[in-house]
Amino acid sequence: MKSTQYLRHNRHKIKLVEPLLPMDTFTGQPLDRAALDSLLRRRMFYASAFDIYGGVSGLYDYGPPGCSLQANIVDTWRKHFILEEDMLEVDCTMLTPHDVLKTSGHVDKFSDWMCKDPKTGEIFRADHLVEEVLEARLKGDKDARHLEAGAAAAVEETAKDVEDGGDKKKRKKKVKDIKVVKLDDNVVQEYEEILAKIDNFDGPALGEIINKYQIKNPGTGGDLEPPVAFNLMFGTSIGPSSNLPGFLRPETAQGQFLNFQKLLVFNNEKMPFASASIGKSFRNEISPRQGLLRVREFLMAEIEHFVDPENKSHPRFPEVADSVTLNFLSKEVQQAGQTKIIRKTIGEAVREGMVDNETLGYFLARISLFLKKIGVNESKIRFRQHMENEMAHYASDCWDAELQTSYGWIECVGCADRSAYDLSVHQKKTGQYLGVRETLKEPRVVEEWDVAIHRPTLGPRYKKNAKAVEERLVQCSNQKEREKWAETLKGGDTVSVLVEGVGKLDIGGDLIKVERIKRTESTREYTPNVIEPSFGIGRILYSLMEHVFWTREEDVNRAVLSFPPNIAPTKVLLVPLSNNPQFNPLVTSMAARIRQLGISNRVDASGATIGKRYSRNDELGTPFGITIDFQSLKDNTITLRERDTTKQVRGTVDEVLETLKRLVEGTETWDETLKKLPIFEGQEVDD
Amino acid sequence: MKSTQYLRHNRHKIKLVEPLLPMDTFTGQPLDRAALDSLLRRRMFYASAFDIYGGVSGLYDYGPPGCSLQANIVDTWRKHFILEEDMLEVDCTMLTPHDVLKTSGHVDKFSDWMCKDPKTGEIFRADHLVEEVLEARLKGDKDARHLEAGAAAAVEETAKDVEDGGDKKKRKKKVKDIKVVKLDDNVVQEYEEILAKIDNFDGPALGEIINKYQIKNPGTGGDLEPPVAFNLMFGTSIGPSSNLPGFLRPETAQGQFLNFQKLLVFNNEKMPFASASIGKSFRNEISPRQGLLRVREFLMAEIEHFVDPENKSHPRFPEVADSVTLNFLSKEVQQAGQTKIIRKTIGEAVREGMVDNETLGYFLARISLFLKKIGVNESKIRFRQHMENEMAHYASDCWDAELQTSYGWIECVGCADRSAYDLSVHQKKTGQYLGVRETLKEPRVVEEWDVAIHRPTLGPRYKKNAKAVEERLVQCSNQKEREKWAETLKGGDTVSVLVEGVGKLDIGGDLIKVERIKRTESTREYTPNVIEPSFGIGRILYSLMEHVFWTREEDVNRAVLSFPPNIAPTKVLLVPLSNNPQFNPLVTSMAARIRQLGISNRVDASGATIGKRYSRNDELGTPFGITIDFQSLKDNTITLRERDTTKQVRGTVDEVLETLKRLVEGTETWDETLKKLPIFEGQEVDD
Repeated sequence: MKSTQYLRHNRHKIKLVEPLLPMDTFTGQPLDRAALDSLLRRRMFYASAFDIYGGVSGLYDYGPPGCSLQANIVDTWRKHFILEEDMLEVDCTMLTPHDVLKTSGHVDKFSDWMCKDPKTGEIFRADHLVEEVLEARLKGDKDARHLEAGAAAAVEETAKDVEDGGDKKKRKKKVKDIKVVKLDDNVVQEYEEILAKIDNFDGPALGEIINKYQIKNPGTGGDLEPPVAFNLMFGTSIGPSSNLPGFLRPETAQGQFLNFQKLLVFNNEKMPFASASIGKSFRNEISPRQGLLRVREFLMAEIEHFVDPENKSHPRFPEVADSVTLNFLSKEVQQAGQTKIIRKTIGEAVREGMVDNETLGYFLARISLFLKKIGVNESKIRFRQHMENEMAHYASDCWDAELQTSYGWIECVGCADRSAYDLSVHQKKTGQYLGVRETLKEPRVVEEWDVAIHRPTLGPRYKKNAKAVEERLVQCSNQKEREKWAETLKGGDTVSVLVEGVGKLDIGGDLIKVERIKRTESTREYTPNVIEPSFGIGRILYSLMEHVFWTREEDVNRAVLSFPPNIAPTKVLLVPLSNNPQFNPLVTSMAARIRQLGISNRVDASGATIGKRYSRNDELGTPFGITIDFQSLKDNTITLRERDTTKQVRGTVDEVLETLKRLVEGTETWDETLKKLPIFEGQEVDD
Repeated sequence: MKSTQYLRHNRHKIKLVEPLLPMDTFTGQPLDRAALDSLLRRRMFYASAFDIYGGVSGLYDYGPPGCSLQANIVDTWRKHFILEEDMLEVDCTMLTPHDVLKTSGHVDKFSDWMCKDPKTGEIFRADHLVEEVLEARLKGDKDARHLEAGAAAAVEETAKDVEDGGDKKKRKKKVKDIKVVKLDDNVVQEYEEILAKIDNFDGPALGEIINKYQIKNPGTGGDLEPPVAFNLMFGTSIGPSSNLPGFLRPETAQGQFLNFQKLLVFNNEKMPFASASIGKSFRNEISPRQGLLRVREFLMAEIEHFVDPENKSHPRFPEVADSVTLNFLSKEVQQAGQTKIIRKTIGEAVREGMVDNETLGYFLARISLFLKKIGVNESKIRFRQHMENEMAHYASDCWDAELQTSYGWIECVGCADRSAYDLSVHQKKTGQYLGVRETLKEPRVVEEWDVAIHRPTLGPRYKKNAKAVEERLVQCSNQKEREKWAETLKGGDTVSVLVEGVGKLDIGGDLIKVERIKRTESTREYTPNVIEPSFGIGRILYSLMEHVFWTREEDVNRAVLSFPPNIAPTKVLLVPLSNNPQFNPLVTSMAARIRQLGISNRVDASGATIGKRYSRNDELGTPFGITIDFQSLKDNTITLRERDTTKQVRGTVDEVLETLKRLVEGTETWDETLKKLPIFEGQEVDD
């Protein structure tokens, strides 16, 4: 199942090949994640949900700046994709009846493997447990060998400080269990091989590994039960009689597929078109870690671009073909065990066939432009292609936009060609047509393989199964199969066909005739293919915060979040020199004027020093500050400060507000401002 | 429980006193709800969710125009409330652990009563069933008496065409069951009394009514089981071990309360302040009806304004006091059995004490301004005060903004003073402080009743219960209670006190001394009161659509939705005269220019006549249209059409776009435009 894989595959797939590198900030300092996290919680970008009740793993609330940041990212997304491309936005329910997700494959396949300790009742996610234990043993081995800790230590470090609310105790127990024991060389190699392939094991395979390598409950040493599948959807029951089981949706995509026919009509039957949806989805993680990167309730923004499978060109592809250059990590490179990035234009990538088609390529380029627009560091974006074994059987190509963070490269956007899979299965299940009927400009002659049944033979031979056999042979056979049958039958042999519910049958030329025929069509019917860019907004938001975090050279405690103005939670801070009430009228009128310009602002009229108040707002990522001092009351001039440089200019209220508007809109840069308005060196105090 | 009542009380409380009046559109035509509903579905404002799977009652998807309308309403809300008032927006999880909702009271009290037919397995909401059956009997009686159907018919009519997806068959059965049977006069009176008080009956009382009046399964005549309580929250289980039961939140409020302390710190400890949240909430309705007005998953926008209980004044109240006049339906009027509206300014209402305090009054005014801003018809807004028996015991005042629709007056915004209830119960349960510590400017002398325990008596007398007794007497007694105790003890009597888990005790002067004492305080502690304006966005959206719907006089099939420009899903339609490719370059460049102005537009280059294309977009509520004709290609002039008047003006591209911008921003009216640009009478064709 593609969507399962999209949501799951990219945990550690290539971790050992690609050791976790220490992250640096964009000023070149090493990233201090603990300091960042402390800032994010202190300034209420986020908080553990239900904190006063002890918290629940994997559930977080966004406080005011986080909420505003999220709203600005979503707003930019809506303009960049929905408005720019005339997409059809829909808002579908999260509650979803069982049958829909049974059809889509989620009921059967959207699961992880878990092991229970029957004594303590603790539950472990099987792949994570194997990883943690083997990594700890390798670490112990390295220590024992007096080797430099290097990459393994970095990995260890990661596991150690990914802590959140509910699971703290359990986690700590696991990690402490590192014994300095030297392993045999061949054991080290076996461990490394297992870790490299950790995502490819199913439950029974994980169970074998757990047995073979004596993996126990790390806290107690107790035995574990064999892995069982745990479905990751939150179940519930719709209505009073408990007879309509349902789930919280694991993705927004299904609601869009179910509305396909109505959307096509809304679009005046014109193809191709895209629908889009922004909303929460849910995954009942077994034991979520990695803070905001792996949560149980998350905001997604998904596009379903419906396209003619015979024509995946895109009219706007030329706009990006030569101008957008991306960092590619192709499947060939990965299959050779490497992580080498290839930089090229999206035009080249499509021409060379590395990216399957123009529409997919167009979206990869647009995704990159979007990420840069919101302030993601371009050098920390790469497009990783799915390897053959990662992709669903029906997918033709799939790329993830991964962002580099202190947790490694994190899949933040998936961009897959889901083919006709979803529309086909829902159509089959419901009997409702989910396709396109296109009147051909000119009738066309189609040559194809036709299956004719000899009825006098069919009925008597298969009796009550006759209908099923006929359906299998006629409705459920494709052109490729028919061509094979024709060849076999021509040689006088019988073909072996599996009929569901009946068995394997030998079918001979007495029952079917398979021939090449010609017929004229005036309409064409097809099930559209779907190209799906799917954004995890929370992951993007967190990665962005890592990318824009840094601390001032002169004082490591003065941290800054350098959000671009369009994304910053608040655009400007209004600071009267002191809490002297004389300033109030001017502050109030300025705040109202700035609000009228559509620019969000906050006033800090507290008694703290100007320097402290600005530091506080550097941490909130507010790009501009306006200081009102005693001079302002006399001559109506004010000071404008820029967050990253801390430089200030001075001008009249009108001059500064006009400048501010251009800076926030992005039509003027700070460098330009510095040339226009006189530099001011005054109030800012360093304490 | 207040929040239960907020969400539940206002179904039909005053229906019989106030018969359902036929609605009219704002042009004075009678509202044809079937026509409106057909339009809304045809133009994909909304659709039954999971339609191709047969639909699920109470679940709806918004299509592109509905989605855009919703986004515009939310955007206006955010600017009108959050930005304008510097509220602290938070985004909390929907998944909520059991304990939180146990504390808030929802686990015990958030339920409806349902009856099961043991033979068919059908389930009926007990109050709805009683209503429907008694109303049908009254209707049969009226028919039998050859009385004019009048009001009852209107009520009946409503029940009949409220149909949605899943429940169609069941519903129809019920309604068909109207027998023309004359009832005794006293029976008619009993039925009418029951219907008038239908929301005041609990399960056992409904059970008695069902027995007494022989109410059966209307479809089969089968007996029903007695009513049982059905909790309206969707249950689920968080994490793999099923040991953390949870629910989908029934309101966004609880997440805001739990974050109170962090929000207070974020606000630099300054009171009062408001938090706000926009997000989905859930109610597992037993058998939802009334289309978009009663759904199982809905968007709410809630404000929690935290205020000092001793000072509920509002600094911005003067801005609205005299300028905002509201339609009030006070509790006194309702208790007298009337529905007479009193119009007065909010200033008068607060001065007279009809509205409890300034903050509550300020929000009522702001709610009204918001509703008018998005296009709600002012004459169809009223503010209805809760009657004493509707309010939670701790609430001091509560008003609903009700909008008049073809379903009656619908509660769309609740505005309640929730007092300190929620913060208090969560603090008590978790032991985490959820209050405000305020340093007093000057220390103050407090005179209060103090309880002193005589320990040498306490221990020996109550042994292991001593601690519980002391806690009850000291920590859990309030000033009022203490005053009473002092009086009783002065007379030498004992006081009777219930100690939880111990029993009723007689406490005498040998154990406690209750005295009036004076002490000096330099800080003051209090639990804030909460004033909560709570918006049901979906209900507002639906009511608005009824308010702006009308049909052209010349052709009842030409419907219009007169959304104001700021709320309209699309602001302008671009129409080339024909699908001649000559027009393409100009259309494309115009669309890009309009998009750059931040104005959402759609192009309709289909082959339909101009008139048809405009009709289609009148139905979508698009306020403006731009026609590009052959003249445009020559002299760069275009036509601008206004939806409601269908009048057109002509000007250069620059002139028209500048005009359009002002019209959409609301800085120019169409009347003004008509005076500025020459009127054009050309292309519009009527077919």
